[in-house]
Amino acid sequence: MSTPARAELHTLSPAECWALLASREIGRVAWSGPAGPTVLPVNYGIAEDAVWIRTSAYAALVREADESPVAFEVDDVDPAAHAAWSVLVRGTAHVRFPDDRGPTPPEVETWPAGPRPLWVVVVPSEITGRRLPPVED
Amino acid sequence: MSTPARAELHTLSPAECWALLASREIGRVAWSGPAGPTVLPVNYGIAEDAVWIRTSAYAALVREADESPVAFEVDDVDPAAHAAWSVLVRGTAHVRFPDDRGPTPPEVETWPAGPRPLWVVVVPSEITGRRLPPVED
Repeated sequence: MSTPARAELHTLSPAECWALLASREIGRVAWSGPAGPTVLPVNYGIAEDAVWIRTSAYAALVREADESPVAFEVDDVDPAAHAAWSVLVRGTAHVRFPDDRGPTPPEVETWPAGPRPLWVVVVPSEITGRRLPPVED
Repeated sequence: MSTPARAELHTLSPAECWALLASREIGRVAWSGPAGPTVLPVNYGIAEDAVWIRTSAYAALVREADESPVAFEVDDVDPAAHAAWSVLVRGTAHVRFPDDRGPTPPEVETWPAGPRPLWVVVVPSEITGRRLPPVED
């Protein structure tokens, strides 16, 4: 059995992490609810150095994560090259209702049908990332 | 401004969820540690109706998640079609050391360089999934 070459994981700088965060429109939010940890893909945007997730009023995220610690993850994976990067934001989630005053939300298109009038704003306390470069042949 | 058509989210059956889980080699594990929730991409395989994650002895996952509730998520996203699916496994993580007796681990190739002699086995208590079909033009 041949052993393919494997690359080392590299740490990304905060500036690289923010640039990668801003380059995508789907990420994954994780929080701990009564049923344990949950991870779900969500549409998001960036504004005011925070991650803004558009969601519906009946989402478990709104019920379970308001004013709680959450994680937000974005990644990209290339199975052919065995290359990948991922960015992890740790912070606190704040639910924002349509009438709430405050900063202007980013433009975020949501993919599923149905209204998504609420925002869950993840204010980062930490942003980290890592990259696995493609294997050189 | 035109409003694009948007599709409804569909619930996947457990059999569909297991088939999608078995179709990938990278997923994301989430757990709650001292710094709050964490989400990281990992190489994994399926054996004995459980998710087997290959990891290193010094991984935070091993230190923080053994015998704890965790979530494991796999998804696929098509930004052009605004289509996606995701599968979420909730369960308990069990660290397995190389000398431990028990079921035979699955074949799992790890992408980063460095030894990954340990397994974190996620035994599901619940498996759920949803699919957002492509938008019809």
